[in-house]
Amino acid sequence: MAMTGSRRDFLRSVGMAGGAGVLYSTMSALGLAPVPEAHADAYRPPRAGDLAATGRRGGRVLVLGAGIAGLAAAYELGKAGYRCHVLEAKDRPGGRNWTVRGGTRETDLDGRTQTAAFSEGQYMNAGPARLPQSHLSLEYCRELDVPVEVFANQNANAYIYHENGGGTLAGRPVRWRTAKADMYGYVAELLAQATDQGALDQRLTAADRERLLSFLRDFGSIGGRADGWAYTGGSRRGYATEPGAGLEEGTVLGPPPSLPDVLAAGLGRRFSFEFGYDQAMMMFQPVGGMDAIPRALAEAVGAHRITYRAEVTGVHDRADGVEVTWRDHRGRVRTDEADFAVAAIPPMIMARLRHNLGADVTAALRHPVPAPVGKIGLEYRSRWWETDEQIYGGITPTDTDLATIWYPSHGYHGRRGTIIGYYNFGENALAYGALPHAQRLERALSRGVRVHGAKYRTELAASFSVAWHKVPFIEGAWVDWPSQTGPEYRLLDRPAGRVHFAGDWLSHAIAWQHGAFASARKAVTAIHTRVLAE
Amino acid sequence: MAMTGSRRDFLRSVGMAGGAGVLYSTMSALGLAPVPEAHADAYRPPRAGDLAATGRRGGRVLVLGAGIAGLAAAYELGKAGYRCHVLEAKDRPGGRNWTVRGGTRETDLDGRTQTAAFSEGQYMNAGPARLPQSHLSLEYCRELDVPVEVFANQNANAYIYHENGGGTLAGRPVRWRTAKADMYGYVAELLAQATDQGALDQRLTAADRERLLSFLRDFGSIGGRADGWAYTGGSRRGYATEPGAGLEEGTVLGPPPSLPDVLAAGLGRRFSFEFGYDQAMMMFQPVGGMDAIPRALAEAVGAHRITYRAEVTGVHDRADGVEVTWRDHRGRVRTDEADFAVAAIPPMIMARLRHNLGADVTAALRHPVPAPVGKIGLEYRSRWWETDEQIYGGITPTDTDLATIWYPSHGYHGRRGTIIGYYNFGENALAYGALPHAQRLERALSRGVRVHGAKYRTELAASFSVAWHKVPFIEGAWVDWPSQTGPEYRLLDRPAGRVHFAGDWLSHAIAWQHGAFASARKAVTAIHTRVLAE
Repeated sequence: MAMTGSRRDFLRSVGMAGGAGVLYSTMSALGLAPVPEAHADAYRPPRAGDLAATGRRGGRVLVLGAGIAGLAAAYELGKAGYRCHVLEAKDRPGGRNWTVRGGTRETDLDGRTQTAAFSEGQYMNAGPARLPQSHLSLEYCRELDVPVEVFANQNANAYIYHENGGGTLAGRPVRWRTAKADMYGYVAELLAQATDQGALDQRLTAADRERLLSFLRDFGSIGGRADGWAYTGGSRRGYATEPGAGLEEGTVLGPPPSLPDVLAAGLGRRFSFEFGYDQAMMMFQPVGGMDAIPRALAEAVGAHRITYRAEVTGVHDRADGVEVTWRDHRGRVRTDEADFAVAAIPPMIMARLRHNLGADVTAALRHPVPAPVGKIGLEYRSRWWETDEQIYGGITPTDTDLATIWYPSHGYHGRRGTIIGYYNFGENALAYGALPHAQRLERALSRGVRVHGAKYRTELAASFSVAWHKVPFIEGAWVDWPSQTGPEYRLLDRPAGRVHFAGDWLSHAIAWQHGAFASARKAVTAIHTRVLAE
Repeated sequence: MAMTGSRRDFLRSVGMAGGAGVLYSTMSALGLAPVPEAHADAYRPPRAGDLAATGRRGGRVLVLGAGIAGLAAAYELGKAGYRCHVLEAKDRPGGRNWTVRGGTRETDLDGRTQTAAFSEGQYMNAGPARLPQSHLSLEYCRELDVPVEVFANQNANAYIYHENGGGTLAGRPVRWRTAKADMYGYVAELLAQATDQGALDQRLTAADRERLLSFLRDFGSIGGRADGWAYTGGSRRGYATEPGAGLEEGTVLGPPPSLPDVLAAGLGRRFSFEFGYDQAMMMFQPVGGMDAIPRALAEAVGAHRITYRAEVTGVHDRADGVEVTWRDHRGRVRTDEADFAVAAIPPMIMARLRHNLGADVTAALRHPVPAPVGKIGLEYRSRWWETDEQIYGGITPTDTDLATIWYPSHGYHGRRGTIIGYYNFGENALAYGALPHAQRLERALSRGVRVHGAKYRTELAASFSVAWHKVPFIEGAWVDWPSQTGPEYRLLDRPAGRVHFAGDWLSHAIAWQHGAFASARKAVTAIHTRVLAE
């Protein structure tokens, strides 16, 4: 990959400059080297030259599933000269990486069919929707020339909406900026008071104490010693009247709620989302829809190497190869053979296939627990969240059963836009998923108006919902392992004969495309190593 | 404006729905209505119909200066039927809104000329570079069909670099995410310990205490009571080895520095930048360069209504009009007359013109203090900050004299990119500005390699620097008023006869385009009101 070369160049140039080299190695020794080193260098993609140099011919590999893991495996193996073929049960690549547009039609496991009526240019990413800067997904976007743009995972102008805390804030949408100013303000006030009263003298030297107090004044925008370190609000909360021309200083929103009200509302529990390794800004998305990634992979693999509407029914491992049975779109049963197989389909579905990999493999495949997850896309005739509420992208978390509302990170200032009206999990996802689409929609709208008012209903143009646990050939948004060190996980992390498993479910980045890419690379490396050793 | 109509529709629809209406008015009464109400509704743009309805003809208005304030005034007056003409000393519109591209040539007040050698598609926004969601600038982008994209004002993967604190972190770049995890971790630990030891019992009920402790555990990712609420690091700091496939759990970066080291480094003083009303994400920029705004305004005003390279030399206010003297690009002195003038040029430059507005006006114009500010653009042959350091946009603050380093918020994954290598103020800006460009560059690079290593120098392709206090006809990045309630400010906030002043310097959003737009609107309203009353 381009990145590896670039990293090598970088290290070389650092090495040439003594001072900087010393700096960086010192940093590294101290655990401060700020760049994760491993994922970029650990993977050595198989190269066409590897096989030629040793007089070998790339074997044939059948890849089961055209999700990210399957496509990435076929892509990497193909670059090295392996002859791959991908069998995919659905009529499109991507698996859970699924972008719904006008005309998208899907029938769920209950037999209910939806056809999306979104306008031209409107879409929802029904599955993964964001790419962290450190993930392989973004590296593949670079390698495959998939243009990316910012995904707004954090927005001070979005709301936090809690109904179930006590106090005056319950049932009122509060801007993130306002909630944060208040919580940080009171935290700073309390810690400054405790510090100044000597409660932390066992922890802090006099110099530490002054440094901490200086930090807290800035962090919380609180008064000084003479003011008792009091938090009394300020412009970080936002303005009731924006500062303007002449003598229009603006009117700061206020006064802040009391400390007990702030604590009761519990809005502060939302902030740590922004600190998460995988969720902290900046984040990205492919321009035009997340499925640009599988589409680019499928194109790189080659259309003739992918059979859609091919439902795998059996996998037979032999000493010298693998035999795969599948049903084509006309219902005909077909059989294909290869030197290896990459099984990149959900484990609970793999467990149901006819196979000879052993009862322990079947049991292990049934071990992880599929996660029910729901999402709804709401297309609006106007972008009222931008024009009326100055919210350009971002997420409003709620403690209602819709969980979160997402504002679109593209098409800013356009005529229309598509919001994610719920993205929920567990019981909430089961409850919404049990309903037909019209009732899911009604339920989502009834919650949304509490945050945004009547326009949330009156401006609606189209909608589409997905319950991932009810999507044929997928049956869950991801899986949760009771343990990723137990024997079941370890068993599937190794090949079963000539069958190599792959998927985010065999990674430590479950529910992220990064996990699928990393797992595919591992399977590719394992197969290539076997071939070179044979 | 489109927005006003849209807001009215919104309020109407809210009004129709009793529940939501009650909700919103309640919110408003509580100071919780989260949308700043004033700036959108306060301005009633003059309309062509206003003049026609009263049988009046739009007068002629001379606008001095084609910066944002001048262009916006001409644009708004033009929509209402006024005949405007704009005189601009430079050869382009925009004033401080200036995008430097390959071929841009500028001679400073010291007589030193630079010509930018940036590649096709590369640019630096030498002046304003970001648009908050609530600002008029973004509304004008919508009205003028200027496409916008996210400006990355905050990035957990960017660094904070302090040389001058004590402790083990001095002189080492630390990722924002790492610095934040450590500071918030220790703050949570200290406050939890103090709370649990009863130090805050006078402030907190038992229920408040438990709520606060629950918040702190989440906020700081600290242990519980049994662990003494200790902060011991965690994945928010980042990874030395990224989580991957199979058994690759990833290796968390660590262990964290000690509390005294964290406090000594003072990295925590950077965090409040992200909470600022004008700086909190999301933020935006026009696609292709900030000057898309003045270019769109100039096009809307009409090219024939703007004269470039027209240096105003005198303003004479009369009972029935204004006479303006200027020098054209051939050095010829010319005179023009109008019913009104909008003086939208920097106050210290206006103070030097020949005028009859009075000595008090001249003194008032000299009252605000121009701010020296410097910026340098550094084009690189590769986007090493993305490929090698996983930094996609964002800002690295330092305590060196370059102040901040900015990574580009566009062209992600492209071949080349342009960093802002310093954006500094005050003494630092004066020090850099006193040097010829080559020495400014060398100085900036020598600091930059301390953060990014040798590549910061070896990959450089082109550069361009600006010292705003040395730019002809501008002479400062903005002005600082000793007081915005004093007699000088108040004097200029009123028209001097038929001369109306406008600019961000006459607003409470100084150094923001918002202030220029707001001030222009105020001047436009004042002129229109006079005309309708005449």
